[in-house]
Amino acid sequence: MSEEKLGYFTEEKSIEAVIERISSDCDPRLKEVMSVIVKKLHEAVKEIEPTQDEWMKAIMFLTETGHKTDDWRQEYILLSDILGVSMLVDAINSRRPNGASENTVLGPFHIEVVPETKMGTNISLDGKGEPMYVHGYILDIDGNPISGAQIDIWQANEDGFYDVQQKGIQPDFNLRGKFFTEANGKYFFKSAKPRYYPIPDDGPVGKLLAAMGRHPFRPAHFHYIVQKKGYQTLTTHLFDPNDQYINSDAVFGVKESLMANFKLIKEIEKINEHGFDKPYYDVEYDFILAKL
Amino acid sequence: MSEEKLGYFTEEKSIEAVIERISSDCDPRLKEVMSVIVKKLHEAVKEIEPTQDEWMKAIMFLTETGHKTDDWRQEYILLSDILGVSMLVDAINSRRPNGASENTVLGPFHIEVVPETKMGTNISLDGKGEPMYVHGYILDIDGNPISGAQIDIWQANEDGFYDVQQKGIQPDFNLRGKFFTEANGKYFFKSAKPRYYPIPDDGPVGKLLAAMGRHPFRPAHFHYIVQKKGYQTLTTHLFDPNDQYINSDAVFGVKESLMANFKLIKEIEKINEHGFDKPYYDVEYDFILAKL
Repeated sequence: MSEEKLGYFTEEKSIEAVIERISSDCDPRLKEVMSVIVKKLHEAVKEIEPTQDEWMKAIMFLTETGHKTDDWRQEYILLSDILGVSMLVDAINSRRPNGASENTVLGPFHIEVVPETKMGTNISLDGKGEPMYVHGYILDIDGNPISGAQIDIWQANEDGFYDVQQKGIQPDFNLRGKFFTEANGKYFFKSAKPRYYPIPDDGPVGKLLAAMGRHPFRPAHFHYIVQKKGYQTLTTHLFDPNDQYINSDAVFGVKESLMANFKLIKEIEKINEHGFDKPYYDVEYDFILAKL
Repeated sequence: MSEEKLGYFTEEKSIEAVIERISSDCDPRLKEVMSVIVKKLHEAVKEIEPTQDEWMKAIMFLTETGHKTDDWRQEYILLSDILGVSMLVDAINSRRPNGASENTVLGPFHIEVVPETKMGTNISLDGKGEPMYVHGYILDIDGNPISGAQIDIWQANEDGFYDVQQKGIQPDFNLRGKFFTEANGKYFFKSAKPRYYPIPDDGPVGKLLAAMGRHPFRPAHFHYIVQKKGYQTLTTHLFDPNDQYINSDAVFGVKESLMANFKLIKEIEKINEHGFDKPYYDVEYDFILAKL
């Protein structure tokens, strides 16, 4: 009886009272996860000391976030994103040796099945926006080229929208490409300069951002997944360091190592060489894959 | 620029990267609350090191908990209850001087507007169950009686259901009472012995309970709200110490000080005195209110 009585709840022993209830039959990983969640949740409540009204506001915020979520909108992932949790989980799951390119979040706009395109293709199917020529090498940590690496690219257009957000306005698969490196590890493609864009901010997460005095924008970037058997898959972005939101990405995706140099090229012979009809941005960036 | 660069996200500085984004214009209390939430959330993620799959399971659990919630069912409050958060918030908001009666959670079955009944009434309107005679005094910390204290009582029946859960089966306002103490501070009423009951366990919270090897039951209890101008309102339960779930209340509401003694009385003259027709349980408990 006296041992069981340890279980009665007190403010001081609240964490122990809840954790000791988890059965010894419980899956060990679930027990570990729930023990940490209970501990940190109670620590937070003890530090915040919410009033009953504040607690009810938290309950209602979580409820509204659930109600905003449907097959097309994942407001809980958005919440995870703006609190830096998605980036933290990504960081924990993609620790790499020094010298390897860094990961960042996948984001919601990746499409699994995209037609394979030829190296060098212009993936801007509607030809809109400021032209961009992107090139570099896929290398291993010792600087050796990786041939047969698959490069999967997707990005927003000059107005900050992905093709899937503008069905009927942008062509299907606009600003998406998938191709493989050859023996020299080189990759290159043509595209249009992406623009910053807001995450969906018409729900409870948008309201929370606004209440914290934060904007909903992500700085201009394009996405890469680079994969090759025997190497860690690299899921990342390249960012425009001159974007007005580069220091305040709403989802914390920016890393210093993922800044590209968007160099405006005005020389007519270079413009002609790439088949553009106006000045273009040259973006050069090498990706270094870590072995598995 | 170098100062702004502090904002780039790294695994090590993840907490600072998110907190430093909160604007100086932000409401100070919201800033305080969100800073603690971000800190504890990131600490939890760093300790758990979730895989991407585990992170997605957590997202889906939160989503399902939101989707289970409607005007009639609050699955997030249930989650707060089974993780001991509701009790912790209650404890923080009802710290009292030594000697005062302890609070516990309000629960979802309280009704604000209930007809006032006469002291001594039998609140078991259908006469079902094992009879119970409950009595005691409402006192201040110095032991003086409090007159004019409002006592609001509600409880489940012998099958573990509140009237609002069995519309048409139980009479309206069954096992509910509201009355006022007189000069001597004494209260007394007749009722039926309550039974243990499960919290709603057909949703994601019930699944989580089961996965942790926990049952969904609350030990038998009856609810009190005792209030009087100039005193802290007391919201509490009295528990049956012989209930099979007394050491494992699914919502952690039990406190040692809230155990009542359910004494079975078989003497025929006492049974007759209270107008019962069989043995009854005598429950005696004094409540001590703290001054505001």
